[in-house]
Amino acid sequence: MAIDFTLTDAQCELQANAREFAKTVLSGVKASYAHLNKPEERFFATKPFFDEVAKAGFIHALIPEAYGGAGFPNIDLAIAAEELMAVDVSVPTTMLGVGLGLQPLLLHGSHEQKSRLLPDFVEDPANRLAALAFSDVGGAANFDCPEPGAGMQTSARRDGDFWIINGQKQYTTNGSGWDGRGAHLYSVVCRTDMGLPPSDSLAVIMVPGNTPGIDIKGHHDMPGHRAVDSPVIHFTDVRVPAANILGQPGDGIAIKYKTFSWTAGLIGAACVGVMRAAFDFAFEFTRTEKRAGSVPIIDHQNAGYMLVDMKSRIEACRYMTWKACHALDVSGGTAEELPTITKVFCSETCVQVVYDAMRLVGVDSYTSDTPLAGLMQDALCFPLYDGGNMGIRRRRLHALMRAKDYDPLAAAYG
Amino acid sequence: MAIDFTLTDAQCELQANAREFAKTVLSGVKASYAHLNKPEERFFATKPFFDEVAKAGFIHALIPEAYGGAGFPNIDLAIAAEELMAVDVSVPTTMLGVGLGLQPLLLHGSHEQKSRLLPDFVEDPANRLAALAFSDVGGAANFDCPEPGAGMQTSARRDGDFWIINGQKQYTTNGSGWDGRGAHLYSVVCRTDMGLPPSDSLAVIMVPGNTPGIDIKGHHDMPGHRAVDSPVIHFTDVRVPAANILGQPGDGIAIKYKTFSWTAGLIGAACVGVMRAAFDFAFEFTRTEKRAGSVPIIDHQNAGYMLVDMKSRIEACRYMTWKACHALDVSGGTAEELPTITKVFCSETCVQVVYDAMRLVGVDSYTSDTPLAGLMQDALCFPLYDGGNMGIRRRRLHALMRAKDYDPLAAAYG
Amino acid sequence: MAIDFTLTDAQCELQANAREFAKTVLSGVKASYAHLNKPEERFFATKPFFDEVAKAGFIHALIPEAYGGAGFPNIDLAIAAEELMAVDVSVPTTMLGVGLGLQPLLLHGSHEQKSRLLPDFVEDPANRLAALAFSDVGGAANFDCPEPGAGMQTSARRDGDFWIINGQKQYTTNGSGWDGRGAHLYSVVCRTDMGLPPSDSLAVIMVPGNTPGIDIKGHHDMPGHRAVDSPVIHFTDVRVPAANILGQPGDGIAIKYKTFSWTAGLIGAACVGVMRAAFDFAFEFTRTEKRAGSVPIIDHQNAGYMLVDMKSRIEACRYMTWKACHALDVSGGTAEELPTITKVFCSETCVQVVYDAMRLVGVDSYTSDTPLAGLMQDALCFPLYDGGNMGIRRRRLHALMRAKDYDPLAAAYG
Amino acid sequence: MAIDFTLTDAQCELQANAREFAKTVLSGVKASYAHLNKPEERFFATKPFFDEVAKAGFIHALIPEAYGGAGFPNIDLAIAAEELMAVDVSVPTTMLGVGLGLQPLLLHGSHEQKSRLLPDFVEDPANRLAALAFSDVGGAANFDCPEPGAGMQTSARRDGDFWIINGQKQYTTNGSGWDGRGAHLYSVVCRTDMGLPPSDSLAVIMVPGNTPGIDIKGHHDMPGHRAVDSPVIHFTDVRVPAANILGQPGDGIAIKYKTFSWTAGLIGAACVGVMRAAFDFAFEFTRTEKRAGSVPIIDHQNAGYMLVDMKSRIEACRYMTWKACHALDVSGGTAEELPTITKVFCSETCVQVVYDAMRLVGVDSYTSDTPLAGLMQDALCFPLYDGGNMGIRRRRLHALMRAKDYDPLAAAYG
Repeated sequence: MAIDFTLTDAQCELQANAREFAKTVLSGVKASYAHLNKPEERFFATKPFFDEVAKAGFIHALIPEAYGGAGFPNIDLAIAAEELMAVDVSVPTTMLGVGLGLQPLLLHGSHEQKSRLLPDFVEDPANRLAALAFSDVGGAANFDCPEPGAGMQTSARRDGDFWIINGQKQYTTNGSGWDGRGAHLYSVVCRTDMGLPPSDSLAVIMVPGNTPGIDIKGHHDMPGHRAVDSPVIHFTDVRVPAANILGQPGDGIAIKYKTFSWTAGLIGAACVGVMRAAFDFAFEFTRTEKRAGSVPIIDHQNAGYMLVDMKSRIEACRYMTWKACHALDVSGGTAEELPTITKVFCSETCVQVVYDAMRLVGVDSYTSDTPLAGLMQDALCFPLYDGGNMGIRRRRLHALMRAKDYDPLAAAYG
Repeated sequence: MAIDFTLTDAQCELQANAREFAKTVLSGVKASYAHLNKPEERFFATKPFFDEVAKAGFIHALIPEAYGGAGFPNIDLAIAAEELMAVDVSVPTTMLGVGLGLQPLLLHGSHEQKSRLLPDFVEDPANRLAALAFSDVGGAANFDCPEPGAGMQTSARRDGDFWIINGQKQYTTNGSGWDGRGAHLYSVVCRTDMGLPPSDSLAVIMVPGNTPGIDIKGHHDMPGHRAVDSPVIHFTDVRVPAANILGQPGDGIAIKYKTFSWTAGLIGAACVGVMRAAFDFAFEFTRTEKRAGSVPIIDHQNAGYMLVDMKSRIEACRYMTWKACHALDVSGGTAEELPTITKVFCSETCVQVVYDAMRLVGVDSYTSDTPLAGLMQDALCFPLYDGGNMGIRRRRLHALMRAKDYDPLAAAYG
Repeated sequence: MAIDFTLTDAQCELQANAREFAKTVLSGVKASYAHLNKPEERFFATKPFFDEVAKAGFIHALIPEAYGGAGFPNIDLAIAAEELMAVDVSVPTTMLGVGLGLQPLLLHGSHEQKSRLLPDFVEDPANRLAALAFSDVGGAANFDCPEPGAGMQTSARRDGDFWIINGQKQYTTNGSGWDGRGAHLYSVVCRTDMGLPPSDSLAVIMVPGNTPGIDIKGHHDMPGHRAVDSPVIHFTDVRVPAANILGQPGDGIAIKYKTFSWTAGLIGAACVGVMRAAFDFAFEFTRTEKRAGSVPIIDHQNAGYMLVDMKSRIEACRYMTWKACHALDVSGGTAEELPTITKVFCSETCVQVVYDAMRLVGVDSYTSDTPLAGLMQDALCFPLYDGGNMGIRRRRLHALMRAKDYDPLAAAYG
Repeated sequence: MAIDFTLTDAQCELQANAREFAKTVLSGVKASYAHLNKPEERFFATKPFFDEVAKAGFIHALIPEAYGGAGFPNIDLAIAAEELMAVDVSVPTTMLGVGLGLQPLLLHGSHEQKSRLLPDFVEDPANRLAALAFSDVGGAANFDCPEPGAGMQTSARRDGDFWIINGQKQYTTNGSGWDGRGAHLYSVVCRTDMGLPPSDSLAVIMVPGNTPGIDIKGHHDMPGHRAVDSPVIHFTDVRVPAANILGQPGDGIAIKYKTFSWTAGLIGAACVGVMRAAFDFAFEFTRTEKRAGSVPIIDHQNAGYMLVDMKSRIEACRYMTWKACHALDVSGGTAEELPTITKVFCSETCVQVVYDAMRLVGVDSYTSDTPLAGLMQDALCFPLYDGGNMGIRRRRLHALMRAKDYDPLAAAYG
């Protein structure tokens, strides 16, 4: 135990495998969907690649050993995610979407709940998707607002031994399932009593995808993350066993924040991957292109200057990401400040780096002849999804810092 | 004559007309092409809107009164362009593309040349497109590089009373013409002697579109400016009268810079238009949306803070643009520093402002439900086209500042 | 009346005179105080330069013709201020501090009040200083906060035909007077009833400097603006005629905002001046220095790149400033959004530009051998004083934008 | 060996001790010199604090165990430096200046040279200073320029068994020695043959401070790092044994880069320390101050937003610094890219964070009542010294990236 940045042999092997997988498998993803106009068709087109992801064990990596998975620490997931995302963001996002969908259960489920719900994903990881149903249609930025009429509007009414769920969700990654009829399992964020504030009523209830009353109502068409599934889903009188609630009503807020802390750390790795892709393209371009000049572009000082700044930012993001994932690992998932600022910092840095790559390459970056415009579209998602950065700063990080016992050094040394 | 920011009555009327035209006509442009996958089809789909542009007199505005046009000063073009671009960038870019294609002729043509070539555009402005053929396939960032084998590769060989032009061009805005068979007139930048450096050989030759040997070889697919025509064009033994050269061989460098100075000032206005569109959307969104909270988003301090910064940048760009256009007007088109830095400053500011609007609105901005992702795609073009900003800084502005007689105050007061 | 950026002959003459005055007179200011450790001693040392300022008519320029002054429009003040501030910030800030101190009277005083109080400054401009006493010790960022116990704490109690003023003020520019015993006239911002919110109680009362009860209690030592007077002043049972109140209790908020709008526009010009000084030094440095290399630094691309960006920002600020001053002129001082964002934008840009100049010049800029470190100290004041930018955004500009009838285009075209 | 961010028990103890030392000892440094106008007097005034530094073992930490020191790894030095620099930059910079002065010897000296020259510093660390004499008066940005007449001008002429050194140096940290008569030992960068390019002639020669011909010629007065010694030193016919050259003529370039890589990593830690000081002050200010409002400033969203961004940047810099120091440790000091970009990134981020702290606190940060203006002065040094960042990017990092075998992933994983 000491500050160290050396990958173990196992991590080196994981990295090499992920890199090879990305190169041989994921490099074909884009061609599979590029011609398709409908977002759901693009998503479905990536199924064969997801099969390979599952076969390679990346879904098992998300599930603890105690429940039949491989239980990778977050730092290992980050190493792998950087490699995968450097080649394609869509399929790895679907993969992490499974992790996001299961995270409430993993972090807050009872042994009974985990034993009941996790094995399905171990048995048939290629065909079973989990999905977090968090954002209401109408917005979720103030999901925990205590004012009457405000806050999350999706409700769960108790009816004997059942919850009856009603609400409309969007940005429900993976929510369509591979057959377009629904995910295998949803973590639905809802309120058990609309008369109580979210602090007393917000809950997460696990909902099997085959429960009646779940309707896929359309898909957002997004400029990047082109083959990621992002449906609108209506839940109408959806009836699930009372035992499917995670913990107690009111626990939903903590579950929500912990779930997004987990994904926040890995978004850092995704951003590093995308920045790497942009840097690598720009770097190679400047080494080989002369653009009617007599020397390669990299010989121009300005090119060097920009490459240096791009590279600096990538490095800064990588180690911050590692520290955030390490903090999640050693805290058992309760670390919050560091993963959250990692998401904010790395996502905005990613946009900046890809933009710099475009400016460095010039107008060719604005065509489909280079990958940069596509990478920019992918990058723009990072500051906006999983809690837009403005909301995260305003709502969550501000709250952490206002807490009476906030210790600025705890994130680093605590 | 005094520093003044008051629009004349005529300018107020122009602005009101342009605003009304944008609202009633250009607001329909996007729907006309949104479903089309091929870039050339999207361009062709906007023809009816261009007809209206022509009918409204915006093409006449680009042509001097002496040759039958209306001869608007650049400051007036900027006022109109801001209004048009705030609603759609594609059709106004086609319109300004005509101006770009004619600019070498307007700035450097003889009376005979103008008398011969301009009337076509006055007579049938809706159907005749002009196009500047500048960028070689392979890049133009170092078009004036004096090293052997470097610099622009498109050539014009003298054969008796003719020039025989050979070369491959790209980013030739409007170059397809409305029928896909070519523009009505090209300004082709080429070298009259590949053995001489561009300073002695670069020339602009006017080439009628119906000359044999001009082949449209494909179109760049761009993430924004979706219905702007950007073809690759091959010129193979294209024979035009010797009298079609503007000035002398070697004049090409100056013509190129003056042409791009003209467009640079108006790109400033385009950027202001796009920023306005993004600001207006974000402003309205924050006034009306609560996102599950109890107050409109604009009541949050952070929203106010971001709106203020967006607004500040828009204002800064607008007056810089006006000054640049004014400088072009009073200098007869020779002002260079101010228009050029206006292009650089406003284009990068535009990306920043639209990005801020996206961050303020949050994840909805990342879907086709709001115009912001589309505006971002449009904005990303500005720093990259018409001479990428990195190249402009490196090549042109650096050169201006290194000149022995450079006076830092001349742009403002000179 | 038309958009125009051409200086009139009179403006050209004003500019030339101001430039010459700066060069011949103000260039000596720094040497007069550089060896002095106490801030008040530095201020007093500049008196001979202020005498010249007064003699040159710059104080008369601040006072309307109707009251014996020369009544310069703000656009002219901006032209002159840019020239003066490019050479020295301290003495011109003292000069503008007179304007700031008189501004409440000019904007909101009755004819009787102006007739009574202004002539002193026309008669002996070199020896009579006006001072705005706004900031309470303890802070003024929430001076208009309506909560009990909050808001401005300086009070004015009515006692027959008199106001009895009590409170402690700081950042009272010019408040020491040239003799260290007080300014000639104070505009004191205070509350006429601490039981009423500032919207009903805030007032500005004109207080002659020789009124008993005014004590200079010390001076802030500031890293830049080294010879500007910034005292702490205690007002203890200061008794002035009831007729010295400007308008009614409650008018104070509007007076405060209008006063700071006036200064905001001119701070834009001050920022342009300081940026110019930094640019000019860096430009000359790069042209003449080789730093052990074989070519002048300006021949390095990076130097060019940075100079270009510095120059772009200076130009953007200059025209924004002109527009803001023009807006103040044509609105009779009621324009608010544009001057205020000009202050925010130009001040932060100024810090950025001077910082870039330092980075371009390198470590020599970190010594007293070059003026850059000193310019940086001066620049850092701009975003912080006259309402720190964070507070201005949060409090004032946010409020303007939240207003129901806010029109985003009004600042430009309204 | 695995990626880890956990401090060992020994590191925790080191950190606690350094923090306590900073709090109890270094907190008094500023008062010791604040009243002194001459830079050399300020430096001398810190001698008692340096005595404590030496007594606490921080100088021993810089010297390998094999030569009697404690031989701390760089990662441990970074942990300690962050704590010290958070309280004072001057004395710790003097301490690191000893390390800088010895680094050429440590990295490139023979066993004989180390055995001969290091023990003095082990024996009497409080009174013996080492100094790197690198920058020529006239600049060093192009010290390795091969053009005739360019490049470093300090020369060493061979005379039998001696080198005769001539040249003028500046920014020679610690060069005055505690008695003002010179350091105990200099590493002098010079050329052994002015007719050969630096690649064949640049050398580092160890020069005992008591050698005749060394004259302290004045001190730079700097806005921050107020009590750091930065003299101009003339070397006139300074005669030292031939055996004092490190390696061979021509090795100087590599030695120079390795020396500055070492310091670059620790500058990262210094920047983190200064940022921490600024953050901590601003954080406490916002928690306790209401500025005439009804709630502490931290309750304002904008305050939260800024604190979040400041905090994010500090965290990013800390882990990048750790990685850079780790890379130096595992590479035996040959790691170059990562330490160098760490210096560039962290130093510019430090200026940004301190500036944000000033803007957050407002105008009080512009007075001597708060430490922020002073921290800003200190921060501004970081991007400028030890190779200005512009030069580092242009010269060194650009060169690294242009190398044929450059591997973008090597810094992270190599």
